[in-house]
Amino acid sequence: MKSKRDLWSGRFRKRLDPEARAFSSSPEDAAIARHDIIGSIAHAMTLRRAGIISERESEEIVEALRSIYKEVSADAAEFLSGEEDVHMAVERRLTSMSPAGPKLHTARSRNDQIALDLRLYVRENSLRMMRGIISLQKALLRRASGERSTVLPGYTHLQHAQPVYLSHHLLAHFNRLERDFRRIASDMDRNCFSPLGACAIAGTSHGIDVRYSSSLLGFPRHFSNSIDATSDRDFVLDACYSNAVTALHLSSMAEEFILWSSAEFSFIDIPDELSTGSSIMPHKKNPDMAEHIRGLASRPISDLSGVATILHSLPLGYASDLQHVKRYLFDSFEVTSSLLSVASSFMSSVRFNRERMREAASDPLSYSVEIVDQLVQSGMAFREAHELVGRAVLKSLDTGKALSDVLSQAGVRANVPSVPEESVEMRGSEGGSSLESIRKQMRRASSVVEREGRELGAAERRYESMVDTLLGK
Amino acid sequence: MKSKRDLWSGRFRKRLDPEARAFSSSPEDAAIARHDIIGSIAHAMTLRRAGIISERESEEIVEALRSIYKEVSADAAEFLSGEEDVHMAVERRLTSMSPAGPKLHTARSRNDQIALDLRLYVRENSLRMMRGIISLQKALLRRASGERSTVLPGYTHLQHAQPVYLSHHLLAHFNRLERDFRRIASDMDRNCFSPLGACAIAGTSHGIDVRYSSSLLGFPRHFSNSIDATSDRDFVLDACYSNAVTALHLSSMAEEFILWSSAEFSFIDIPDELSTGSSIMPHKKNPDMAEHIRGLASRPISDLSGVATILHSLPLGYASDLQHVKRYLFDSFEVTSSLLSVASSFMSSVRFNRERMREAASDPLSYSVEIVDQLVQSGMAFREAHELVGRAVLKSLDTGKALSDVLSQAGVRANVPSVPEESVEMRGSEGGSSLESIRKQMRRASSVVEREGRELGAAERRYESMVDTLLGK
Amino acid sequence: MKSKRDLWSGRFRKRLDPEARAFSSSPEDAAIARHDIIGSIAHAMTLRRAGIISERESEEIVEALRSIYKEVSADAAEFLSGEEDVHMAVERRLTSMSPAGPKLHTARSRNDQIALDLRLYVRENSLRMMRGIISLQKALLRRASGERSTVLPGYTHLQHAQPVYLSHHLLAHFNRLERDFRRIASDMDRNCFSPLGACAIAGTSHGIDVRYSSSLLGFPRHFSNSIDATSDRDFVLDACYSNAVTALHLSSMAEEFILWSSAEFSFIDIPDELSTGSSIMPHKKNPDMAEHIRGLASRPISDLSGVATILHSLPLGYASDLQHVKRYLFDSFEVTSSLLSVASSFMSSVRFNRERMREAASDPLSYSVEIVDQLVQSGMAFREAHELVGRAVLKSLDTGKALSDVLSQAGVRANVPSVPEESVEMRGSEGGSSLESIRKQMRRASSVVEREGRELGAAERRYESMVDTLLGK
Amino acid sequence: MKSKRDLWSGRFRKRLDPEARAFSSSPEDAAIARHDIIGSIAHAMTLRRAGIISERESEEIVEALRSIYKEVSADAAEFLSGEEDVHMAVERRLTSMSPAGPKLHTARSRNDQIALDLRLYVRENSLRMMRGIISLQKALLRRASGERSTVLPGYTHLQHAQPVYLSHHLLAHFNRLERDFRRIASDMDRNCFSPLGACAIAGTSHGIDVRYSSSLLGFPRHFSNSIDATSDRDFVLDACYSNAVTALHLSSMAEEFILWSSAEFSFIDIPDELSTGSSIMPHKKNPDMAEHIRGLASRPISDLSGVATILHSLPLGYASDLQHVKRYLFDSFEVTSSLLSVASSFMSSVRFNRERMREAASDPLSYSVEIVDQLVQSGMAFREAHELVGRAVLKSLDTGKALSDVLSQAGVRANVPSVPEESVEMRGSEGGSSLESIRKQMRRASSVVEREGRELGAAERRYESMVDTLLGK
Repeated sequence: MKSKRDLWSGRFRKRLDPEARAFSSSPEDAAIARHDIIGSIAHAMTLRRAGIISERESEEIVEALRSIYKEVSADAAEFLSGEEDVHMAVERRLTSMSPAGPKLHTARSRNDQIALDLRLYVRENSLRMMRGIISLQKALLRRASGERSTVLPGYTHLQHAQPVYLSHHLLAHFNRLERDFRRIASDMDRNCFSPLGACAIAGTSHGIDVRYSSSLLGFPRHFSNSIDATSDRDFVLDACYSNAVTALHLSSMAEEFILWSSAEFSFIDIPDELSTGSSIMPHKKNPDMAEHIRGLASRPISDLSGVATILHSLPLGYASDLQHVKRYLFDSFEVTSSLLSVASSFMSSVRFNRERMREAASDPLSYSVEIVDQLVQSGMAFREAHELVGRAVLKSLDTGKALSDVLSQAGVRANVPSVPEESVEMRGSEGGSSLESIRKQMRRASSVVEREGRELGAAERRYESMVDTLLGK
Repeated sequence: MKSKRDLWSGRFRKRLDPEARAFSSSPEDAAIARHDIIGSIAHAMTLRRAGIISERESEEIVEALRSIYKEVSADAAEFLSGEEDVHMAVERRLTSMSPAGPKLHTARSRNDQIALDLRLYVRENSLRMMRGIISLQKALLRRASGERSTVLPGYTHLQHAQPVYLSHHLLAHFNRLERDFRRIASDMDRNCFSPLGACAIAGTSHGIDVRYSSSLLGFPRHFSNSIDATSDRDFVLDACYSNAVTALHLSSMAEEFILWSSAEFSFIDIPDELSTGSSIMPHKKNPDMAEHIRGLASRPISDLSGVATILHSLPLGYASDLQHVKRYLFDSFEVTSSLLSVASSFMSSVRFNRERMREAASDPLSYSVEIVDQLVQSGMAFREAHELVGRAVLKSLDTGKALSDVLSQAGVRANVPSVPEESVEMRGSEGGSSLESIRKQMRRASSVVEREGRELGAAERRYESMVDTLLGK
Repeated sequence: MKSKRDLWSGRFRKRLDPEARAFSSSPEDAAIARHDIIGSIAHAMTLRRAGIISERESEEIVEALRSIYKEVSADAAEFLSGEEDVHMAVERRLTSMSPAGPKLHTARSRNDQIALDLRLYVRENSLRMMRGIISLQKALLRRASGERSTVLPGYTHLQHAQPVYLSHHLLAHFNRLERDFRRIASDMDRNCFSPLGACAIAGTSHGIDVRYSSSLLGFPRHFSNSIDATSDRDFVLDACYSNAVTALHLSSMAEEFILWSSAEFSFIDIPDELSTGSSIMPHKKNPDMAEHIRGLASRPISDLSGVATILHSLPLGYASDLQHVKRYLFDSFEVTSSLLSVASSFMSSVRFNRERMREAASDPLSYSVEIVDQLVQSGMAFREAHELVGRAVLKSLDTGKALSDVLSQAGVRANVPSVPEESVEMRGSEGGSSLESIRKQMRRASSVVEREGRELGAAERRYESMVDTLLGK
Repeated sequence: MKSKRDLWSGRFRKRLDPEARAFSSSPEDAAIARHDIIGSIAHAMTLRRAGIISERESEEIVEALRSIYKEVSADAAEFLSGEEDVHMAVERRLTSMSPAGPKLHTARSRNDQIALDLRLYVRENSLRMMRGIISLQKALLRRASGERSTVLPGYTHLQHAQPVYLSHHLLAHFNRLERDFRRIASDMDRNCFSPLGACAIAGTSHGIDVRYSSSLLGFPRHFSNSIDATSDRDFVLDACYSNAVTALHLSSMAEEFILWSSAEFSFIDIPDELSTGSSIMPHKKNPDMAEHIRGLASRPISDLSGVATILHSLPLGYASDLQHVKRYLFDSFEVTSSLLSVASSFMSSVRFNRERMREAASDPLSYSVEIVDQLVQSGMAFREAHELVGRAVLKSLDTGKALSDVLSQAGVRANVPSVPEESVEMRGSEGGSSLESIRKQMRRASSVVEREGRELGAAERRYESMVDTLLGK
């Protein structure tokens, strides 16, 4: 930590103790360095418009900030090294470049500044998550298309329930991600307002135009209450929660990959480049990318609980506790982003053992519902049919006789499917397991991905154009 | 637990062990008993439409279910006593009333049935939360209106920052609740589809019309993937999360009430009917409703973490683990609902000590920003002005001299506000602290509450009319 | 809630609002009703010894309390119905029975009273947990003994690593429970002091002998600091944590049962009386006791997080927030106790499919480490041997040739085990996989269980004799 | 990440994908680099003793490892840069230094190796925590001694309950830390065994002496079950839990400092070197070290919940999920260590405003219990006395008359204390509030700190001497 004067030195006799300075510093701020500068450029322009700084001062400050932006984009960690936080680092550099630098802090406090930085960070990274989600959805859709009629057991309670197509199974994961996409979109919409101008807690006596800075920064709205604007961290909670749900979804997918790669299931082969071996056992090939996903999925969940612990029983108004939501937030996005990326690689390259899956799905016992349904359709009450077929299953297990034989010996007339596909195709209801339903699902999924892509593309363009404009590109 | 035959008795030789039965039973199911019946009525109508049951059978079943609904509405706990879950309890009663009863389970599994029950439960209770939120927002708005120009210190770091109006402070809480309302609304929108017809995991071979049952139950959409429909519990996570955020907001409000009722703050008096005394200390009057809110706010948070622990690394397809999200979900809604209700009572009846608040806000040191701003407006750089005023503050503290005197001795010309209201009014920016801004905020808040009321009213009417129709009212 | 006077009515003009009363009541107090009475008997005796009440008054109070104890033991819920908490319920009943009743509250506050009740509750229930742990350990030991030489694959990354005996695997679970037992024992030891006499926060001016009440209640120590004594809830955290760890251990065991009961593993058969079937699929037999264990294991974990959220940033001195740790605590013990009990039943009655396990363990590839070890023992460097055997494994997989053939073709002289037992027996190091090691482990485990039993027996007798003495038995 | 051959290359055709390699790498391993080397030295000696490597090879390897230890001690992060984990980094360096290097991996897997590294890390860092706890206890004891008779209000519900001495209050915090010390000590005792020799999961066929390596590494016991030894992470949970409890205790202390530094309380002055100011408000002086403590205390709590999420439902045997407990563990220790350190500085240097505290404690209403007690001692029943004094309090509040006057007008004879000290001294029971009790508490606390110091000193010496011996010092 370099020696330097504190921002608040006037009222103080002694400087902050070095250990205390280290304790309260934010090395993680590299994540928001670019956003801090973008926000400062917009603020400089707003000060200029209010006549608080001159045209020349504004140009000088903006030029300097744009050059700092480049420096930070090249290596934010290096830029921040030895500084307690990003605000100080940028201010110090700016002041060394422009005599007007210190004026930038007129009509702004670190309280509205950090709130803005975090909102910009969340906006950019939410778009990144949406991109990652679409990418995994596309991988799922591609694999579903290739495995349209690959049959495997559908499981409930990890027991064979009824045969289904692998495409059906993969599209269930697709649907989860679709909700994740929509959840982020509604978070962004709800939380989208600029806090700039709220200052420390109560606004400012400088006549700045908060509509102007909001619009420069691409916010459709500005804050309506300065106390709320500086202490609100709901958008942090929301982002951490949305990431946690995505992580939960990926942990579920990972669990299946781990099960499926076991010798007992043997439903998949993992490519060498996504497996590791054992330092001691030469025959091992481990599904550890999936295990890493499952283990790392705990992070966004515990990040969320960390933010909640901080916010519980914290009164209104900024408090330094809020500084510590940053690490949870940044970690949540970093981890979830890499989970999505690795899950996409995994999903794209795993080999499905079609024969093995079909073999597992070929147990006639798992067609029992279709037999019950036929009995019901021929007039038997459901519970009676269930009992009758249940007893036949038990007899088949005990005697080793085929279920169809047991049934016909018992005088039951029913068409027991001879291959699993027959059973699957019987369930032709909407959203059900037949190929016809799969085709519909895939059409729907394609159009969902397309719509998401359009929506995200537009949002990305808005964000980039906001940044480009402020950077003078 | 009464002795009875298991639903699956055909394939089994022995009956479930009593301890195991108790372990896997769901005494909490009273919460969803009404929803289960509603769902069954819609299913009976759907079976009728598909020709699976006759007109007469359908009428008989629906009549019986409507009568069970009344019984359950009167005392659900009594109805369920000794049964392992709501599905069994309703089925047993129905079968005793109507010979066609067992046919109701055609083309439906407990997996899609419980998914439906929970979705109906969440829909009804989300509306209840929205009602509770509006009620607290109205209380805040009323009190803000009455304390429009009551001045108190705005706090950052629990230190006096700048004077603000109490109305401004109360409206910050309003804004938090506004986001809570919108979060629930978007959850409901995203999760609003009917799972009925997904059966165990893979749909059914009975040609039922899932669009019809969806529309009877007031869902704008039906499931697109049966595997997802039966294992998706995102809507449970979402509801638990939304409740947790509201609980966090209320814990923050409660913390302030506790602080404010301390002898040191003395900002509020709590009415006798919302306080308790001490069993040993006769002089005590405790803010324990606020403490209960703060302590109970931990429940929706831990409920959320419980659901996440269950869902982490759970593969697709129904598993009995999912049975245990119910208790978290029901608890989350029950607790949050009572938090909202008590917070409303508290907010409506607490007495604000205006004199004491104003006295605390009358420290000229807390007008320092306005002095700095004046110096900046007269041409001094911000950082310089901050340093100069900071030194004056220190001198004032050291010597006991008034800040205005210290400043004029130092040759600084600035108008030090003589009363806190002067300081508050100087911050006239939008969303800032002046009365003008408060008036705007209150107009906005009024229209927000009105819009929310309309939106909620329409949703409630839709829900009630769906229920009434199915109940034949 | 019956109408009645508040304990603190003197200083208040109005009575507590009914909704507020309900909000702050503790219906869960049935769990500590017996402990509350036991504590009150000890307090009455202490007051008598200090001369604060007369011999006759003491006898009257103690007699009444003993009779209330019987009533409460018969039906605590009924006893508490309509009361806000256990302290009020007991006091009201006592006062109706004995004119000296009101004197019992001399030199005691609800703050030290509830602290005592909870400590007694935790002591009794910790003993119950230890009993449950021993019971499951015995089941594990019994099954390990019966499956001493049953061979199954040892798994890492859910891949076949090396064959091991099932007894070895079961004893790994035993060791976890051994740590759980010891953890509880050290918690009890660390937290074992009586808070009685600390009163509201600062002791009392009545000359009571806190050593006497401590010793009546079987505490080896009494509080040393009255502020700590009334606000300390570390023992609640500790108990919730210990339960959470046990729950985690059982979730791991349950996960294995679920895997092992899948068609793909088929390592176990679950007896009918511990399985359920499907309401729709007559062939299903679900491992749902194991799933309930896995799902319910989330409860003690979320209970712990709830207590932590309450305690975070709570200042010293009693606060009503502390009232809400009770539900977490009681739930934690109730759930963990039933998890232990069901896990014991399951472990005792599950059937192990020895043939299927041995078949899975018979893949020569999983003997690769033993081959590497032989090469190392004949002078090859470890990494070289690992590489060489790894290549042979790959060739064997590619060509379908036996690993031993591939190796001998490559000129490698090594004794490839012909049955899994050969491989297991090669690992003869202490704690390793050979039968010799298993025998040692089992002897150790037997003596551990014996020692635990003695330790627990003595503690139970101490507790019971304390209770019996106070109840005059 | 440098290009290199994988440890398991024999069985694989393709190398690990770079993104996958990054995803599964452990940059946080710097924390255990020293421990890894220490463990390897002990393993080399054990291999030598078993005759698996020669005397010369052993010396060569040990020399190389000692030199790597120095390098790592100088800059572990640099040493690990570009490597996927510490094991690979050390192995690569060792192999480049000694041709015998690859032999070190005989009879050891990464599974027992990492288990050992983490156990050594936890042992060293647990000692560090105990040192930090003692240091804060000493600060508390020192300040308590200096403020022995400083009087302040004791609070319940954040309301004035009864006056107490500040020393009494500070010693309550001392007692919490005493339990923290003892909790860590019992964790260390329970978890203290060496896993070395358990290899991948099932021990080894090399005849190594696990007692020898245990004793070299200072473990009193070695593992009894190899499966447990490689998958047990209870010691990680235990350490994270113990840290979380300490963090909760410090958050409580921090909350009090924040309250006490508010203008309303003004109980403390924070020295300039432990405060910060505001970037915008020149008069501000913020208690932000205390806020950082309160906010950062969330970290060990969320770290614990992260570990629990990973371990929930994870079957026996090593899985890569376990890799991810490391970051939680390291973070938990790092954060808790700095919390303890900053809390000590804070506690040592804060200035207590004795006059202000005494003034707050001088409200005669807060002596009400002593008046009640006198009435009881003169024969009135407790509840009656409580009611009578309560009514007097209300009258005093209503009329503004002194409580003593109200009482004497009502004909009540009682000695109302005239100064708070009188009230404090009346509560002379053991552990109570009188100076006599404080003196006893301080004597006890002194001897506790002394005993802890001796115990810790001995443990530190054992640890250091183990390290020194292995490093040949």
